[in-house]
Amino acid sequence: MLGSTHGTLTTDSRRARVIACDEQPSPVVHGRPAGVGDLDVSGRPLHADVPDLDRFFRPESVAVVGASDAERRPHTGITRQLIDWAEWVGARLHPVHPTRRSVFGIPCSPSLAELPEQVDLAVLLVSDPLPLLEELGAVKVRFAVAFASGFAETGDEGASAQARLAAAAERSGIRLLGPNTNLNAFERFRDDLDGPAVALITQSGHQGRPVFALQELGVRLSHWAPTGNEADLETADFISYFAERPEVGAIACYIEGLKDGRSFLLAADRAARRGVPVVAVKVGRTETGARTAASHTGKLTGADDVVDAAMRQYGVIRVDGLDELQDTAALLARARTPRADGVVVYSISGGTAAHVADLAAEAGLRLPVLSGAKQTELHQWIPGYLNVANPVDNGGHPVGDWRGRKIIDAILDDPQVGVLICPVTGPFPPLSDKLVQDLVDAAEHTDKLVCVVWGSPVGTEAAYRETLLGSSRVATFRTVTNCLTAVRAHLDHQRFVRGYRSPFETAPRAPSPSFRKAQALLRPGQQLSEHAAKQLLRAYGIRVPREQLVTSAAAAVRAAGLVGYPVVMKASGARIAHKTELGLVKIGLTSASQVRDAYRELTDIARYEGIELDGVLVCQMVERGVEMVVGVGHDRLFGPTVTVGLGGVLVEVLRDAAVRVPPFGEEQARDMLGELRGRALLDGVRGRPPADLDALVEVVLRVQRMALELGDGLAELDINPLMVLPRGQGAVALDALAVCR
Amino acid sequence: MLGSTHGTLTTDSRRARVIACDEQPSPVVHGRPAGVGDLDVSGRPLHADVPDLDRFFRPESVAVVGASDAERRPHTGITRQLIDWAEWVGARLHPVHPTRRSVFGIPCSPSLAELPEQVDLAVLLVSDPLPLLEELGAVKVRFAVAFASGFAETGDEGASAQARLAAAAERSGIRLLGPNTNLNAFERFRDDLDGPAVALITQSGHQGRPVFALQELGVRLSHWAPTGNEADLETADFISYFAERPEVGAIACYIEGLKDGRSFLLAADRAARRGVPVVAVKVGRTETGARTAASHTGKLTGADDVVDAAMRQYGVIRVDGLDELQDTAALLARARTPRADGVVVYSISGGTAAHVADLAAEAGLRLPVLSGAKQTELHQWIPGYLNVANPVDNGGHPVGDWRGRKIIDAILDDPQVGVLICPVTGPFPPLSDKLVQDLVDAAEHTDKLVCVVWGSPVGTEAAYRETLLGSSRVATFRTVTNCLTAVRAHLDHQRFVRGYRSPFETAPRAPSPSFRKAQALLRPGQQLSEHAAKQLLRAYGIRVPREQLVTSAAAAVRAAGLVGYPVVMKASGARIAHKTELGLVKIGLTSASQVRDAYRELTDIARYEGIELDGVLVCQMVERGVEMVVGVGHDRLFGPTVTVGLGGVLVEVLRDAAVRVPPFGEEQARDMLGELRGRALLDGVRGRPPADLDALVEVVLRVQRMALELGDGLAELDINPLMVLPRGQGAVALDALAVCR
Repeated sequence: MLGSTHGTLTTDSRRARVIACDEQPSPVVHGRPAGVGDLDVSGRPLHADVPDLDRFFRPESVAVVGASDAERRPHTGITRQLIDWAEWVGARLHPVHPTRRSVFGIPCSPSLAELPEQVDLAVLLVSDPLPLLEELGAVKVRFAVAFASGFAETGDEGASAQARLAAAAERSGIRLLGPNTNLNAFERFRDDLDGPAVALITQSGHQGRPVFALQELGVRLSHWAPTGNEADLETADFISYFAERPEVGAIACYIEGLKDGRSFLLAADRAARRGVPVVAVKVGRTETGARTAASHTGKLTGADDVVDAAMRQYGVIRVDGLDELQDTAALLARARTPRADGVVVYSISGGTAAHVADLAAEAGLRLPVLSGAKQTELHQWIPGYLNVANPVDNGGHPVGDWRGRKIIDAILDDPQVGVLICPVTGPFPPLSDKLVQDLVDAAEHTDKLVCVVWGSPVGTEAAYRETLLGSSRVATFRTVTNCLTAVRAHLDHQRFVRGYRSPFETAPRAPSPSFRKAQALLRPGQQLSEHAAKQLLRAYGIRVPREQLVTSAAAAVRAAGLVGYPVVMKASGARIAHKTELGLVKIGLTSASQVRDAYRELTDIARYEGIELDGVLVCQMVERGVEMVVGVGHDRLFGPTVTVGLGGVLVEVLRDAAVRVPPFGEEQARDMLGELRGRALLDGVRGRPPADLDALVEVVLRVQRMALELGDGLAELDINPLMVLPRGQGAVALDALAVCR
Repeated sequence: MLGSTHGTLTTDSRRARVIACDEQPSPVVHGRPAGVGDLDVSGRPLHADVPDLDRFFRPESVAVVGASDAERRPHTGITRQLIDWAEWVGARLHPVHPTRRSVFGIPCSPSLAELPEQVDLAVLLVSDPLPLLEELGAVKVRFAVAFASGFAETGDEGASAQARLAAAAERSGIRLLGPNTNLNAFERFRDDLDGPAVALITQSGHQGRPVFALQELGVRLSHWAPTGNEADLETADFISYFAERPEVGAIACYIEGLKDGRSFLLAADRAARRGVPVVAVKVGRTETGARTAASHTGKLTGADDVVDAAMRQYGVIRVDGLDELQDTAALLARARTPRADGVVVYSISGGTAAHVADLAAEAGLRLPVLSGAKQTELHQWIPGYLNVANPVDNGGHPVGDWRGRKIIDAILDDPQVGVLICPVTGPFPPLSDKLVQDLVDAAEHTDKLVCVVWGSPVGTEAAYRETLLGSSRVATFRTVTNCLTAVRAHLDHQRFVRGYRSPFETAPRAPSPSFRKAQALLRPGQQLSEHAAKQLLRAYGIRVPREQLVTSAAAAVRAAGLVGYPVVMKASGARIAHKTELGLVKIGLTSASQVRDAYRELTDIARYEGIELDGVLVCQMVERGVEMVVGVGHDRLFGPTVTVGLGGVLVEVLRDAAVRVPPFGEEQARDMLGELRGRALLDGVRGRPPADLDALVEVVLRVQRMALELGDGLAELDINPLMVLPRGQGAVALDALAVCR
């Protein structure tokens, strides 16, 4: 019900093409991922070139196939807008029509072959663009835009038609926008606005309108790519391109479905390296939990959690509403690098100041207490009984005269302060007009961030529309929440960029020595027995308990002697999932007779339940530690994922887990632990010793390596519990479940 | 730093007065809580009269003490507004001034005693209102408003002055608004607006301005009570009064600090019984966690969690921002009782429809799939390839002609549907003007809720300002989030009201037989030993393990024989908190020699740690069950609180707990369990049997009874763990910590 309306959720067709590249190198076209040698060990690309879209956005000449000036024809309005737009970008426009001599007075070419010059861009208004692509290739058109709908958004048949279109574009060396896109690619932007711009990418043109309308609030826009069905050019291509453009301050995206997970991450990586913020709405919050999986890991995190994690790994700021997208992108485009992360709330009312400061602290912003000296300075102008420690309450009157500006400058001058937030709750012109003007003036003379929240629901007041929106240096918001969300995103993004190291630089390209050993253990399409799954772990250097697989009671007793009492005994077989529930685990066995009894009981239960065993495991008992779960899942968009969470019985109750998309480094593995609500369990509670975090992180990284190397051969892996022992003592995988593809 | 600017956070002075009432009944003044006999067993009132504030809001005559018409005097502007307001309400205004003959041409009275008539209301513009109160009483003025600041908001000295003011008002039989209030009590409201109104209560006048400005968006307002410091009249008084007014559809509150928890709950109870929604911003999200407490319960929930819970118990809708307050109050004032809770999202764009439907589902709204018949009906007007299952995507064109209205009517006609949400992302006048007009027209002919989100950030468009804001039947929002928040609040509130039973009707008034037994065990100011704390539990019928307190190894062995092996042994003493960490608990002892050794070890550790013991407990061992924590805390605003959460080791790690303010019934106790993230633990996981929920609920209710009866004598109680056994087997308090006041 909530699926994409632009048919881009699945990744399989694209993935197939990338992998095919590896086998039969196709000619490297500018902007397509480079071929052999630039893949990680899982076969996914480590690099994507930036497509050169200069002539797409600023063509020198444009052909319009299907142009019309007949009354009441839908293409007439479109043609008129294209002529208008071509004039604005300075492009020569050539209508193409088999029978007309001219359209709107511009001479027509009867076919693409007869165009008067080589054109950069062809706009295809025809209902079936496929037959045109070969012709376009023949006359060396570089870019095409297809408006036609009826492709992947309509179902399987449309998806096949779309695949043919994509293949034809590739054969012809054409970069195609669409199909199912629209006129929003040909909007005129305001030329009179200052400052860094927002570049916009939307799958649905309609959903981009509010961001486009930001220009009416004084925010500069530079580009709009309405990507539609993304048969060829996709969101990732535009992110990469925009990230390199000097005029772009931030990239705003409305995404219904990602075409390919890796392309998106490579583009986000480029933006992160360049420090250009990407703010995105990604539809699909409620698509989670639809999958079925045999292991816990598979159920722990839904597809949307993976999208969330992937975006966070690369610093993409995910927001929910279009209003947040507008406000956050506008702020991030224009705010400079903060010299400090301290936020001061400043108001003419103590009530307002306290309320906004409360919400700011709740939003995770840091509100430093101003120094005694600074407070004394402020009290020169603000009555002594008012609080100026932060929030700063000026009581109203000082705003009305020369003191107003002094106060603002003094706050901005404080080295602790990076951001000033001034909520103007209601317009009271004698005070608020002057306050707003002072803020606008002060913002011109500082590189710190000045934010105003215009709280009046009316919004037609001159102080708002003229003074505030007329300034490109003051960030103006209509709600406190959106202001705080944007400020938090700005400070977080700056911090992220400072600490960012691209994981693609260090991602493994060749298999480790573990790979061959592990590969031999895989059984395509099958679930491995616990014993085999543990051998897989051992191949990657993950510790498992001493254990032996036995097939008789006598062998069990011998094994217990070798393993050392007390022992645990478990039924082992390829199709056993929840052993504990079935009574197929016996713990704390301390004697030969207990071992013999246990062997009998386990095999009896298995027989009764009709479960085929490959034997019984006699294992070393490991008692003291924190039970965690570490696993591998498979996301249809991003491929393998790695999860870590609270394990044991709690795994199902609390679903307290963090997920990452490989490749990721040690720091991200540590961050995963920080995301767990039950994190304190690892630090030692109630006198228990702290757990061996380094060992846990090491297991997560080894599991990542396994996920990358075994690639799509391993559908799911679930180490539960991984017993994390006290610091310095390591971690032991007590049980494991592995499903092969 | 974030405290109240109106000095109302503490409750002690008020509490003292209420309790004093019990001992020395003071004359019952209209609107004050009734005295003896109407208290619950904890001494808190079970009833509050509705103050008669008709003449406060609509006086027939008003005296203004300190009126002025001199240029450049601050009182001159105030006097002018008061004259204007008096004319609007139809009151005769009498300036009072010792020397002037007239103010603005109105004859002055030299003193209150010389007023030409008995006045209903006196506005006190003087800096020290205290000396005037006796005079006001003498001439039988019923209401006074004090603007003066410098009271509780400035510190202890101001608080004393405020207490004197409150006492003088009570002596003189006057209901006082303020001090530290302002002119917002005397605003003119628009008379030309339709429909049920929003009544507004704000401690800070400034913070009320955006809600007041709703009138400019066509929303009717009926009252504004800027309560300031609440020396006498408080938020609760106005809630009670407004809940009884037929013109009030919803009450909007901005609260910095509550003066008295119980008064607020009684007022909220009245509003809940009448079905009048109360929407509140309550500052103080980040004041949590400041308290120190010996038990876990005390730390589990901060003061703000208690406010949150108390509000939810009585259906008060808590929001964070003033924009949410505006939007939610406006919707709840005007929406009718929904006949169904199904929500349909309807848009001219599939992208917009999918996005908003995704967010709506995420917000917990129910989006039913429309029936096949309804979809067929809609496809008469909407092309067959578009999704009309819900969300309904009309593709744009049908909106432009007669089909637009048909579609809306058909959706609203569906019995599953209670709410239609139509996001209008960008204004596109040929379609959006007609769409909006159709929605406004359709809303006139249905009692279902029609919501429009006007997504353009500009907001000056005629379709928005004239068509949408001109309708009192369409609820118009600027953001999807605020729309969804308000719709969710509306549906939840209606559900709440339908199921509401006032807990005050069934709250205990007299102590239970357990009370005397328990009282004898309390030791003021002390922490009880585990043994004594368990006796307290037994007094209230809460099961504890068989156990004996012993003071010798030999006695321990005898006790173990009586209790039955295996046993647990614990050091017992008045000052032991975290026994496990100190090694003062020994579990699973199976023989006399183990018991003897354990006795020696426990006493050795205690000696080494310098802990005084009253003996060693030998207890029955209880193994299988779910460890929970149940406790009593003490909130300075609401008094005793009851908490239930995951217990054992997890209590500190997960802080997964729910809190309630007594009195509450069984249903609320069950709801508490539903709030726990780890709730599934009680349902039985990994083959464990489901826990005895009834027994757990029973313990929560018995603990509530204890909290009410022991009142303020019990500072904290912490049953941890309460072992909840499998269904039908009860629950046993394995350990308890009690601190007396």
